[in-house]
Amino acid sequence: MSMTTFTVTGMTCGHCEASVREEVSAVAGVEQIEVDAARGTLVVIGNSVDDATVLAAVAEAGYQAQRS
Amino acid sequence: MSMTTFTVTGMTCGHCEASVREEVSAVAGVEQIEVDAARGTLVVIGNSVDDATVLAAVAEAGYQAQRS
Repeated sequence: MSMTTFTVTGMTCGHCEASVREEVSAVAGVEQIEVDAARGTLVVIGNSVDDATVLAAVAEAGYQAQRS
Repeated sequence: MSMTTFTVTGMTCGHCEASVREEVSAVAGVEQIEVDAARGTLVVIGNSVDDATVLAAVAEAGYQAQRS
């Protein structure tokens, strides 16, 4: 199990957080997600989670992310 | 058919607009809705639409509104 933190830009509200959560929760290996629009952060906890797939999932939700 | 404009505070993004649209579209008599998060406006077009019911619908979506 490992924890990775990403910086996400463009989230403005709880709906945005929910969109990111929905997409990232579908990524293989993801166990837990903490997403915070105000701080612009996404923390992903899981097993063998592929960073590039997380970044793609955030992009699918409509936001830009990078590893912190 | 009449048009009424409301000022809505708290909407930040397209998801917020969609939430307001969803609730207000369920109000009796509503035919068309224009909602703009950036401007904080909601325009309702319809027949015999009750203003108080529109305000309650916006509140249900999680935002504050008043007639402009």
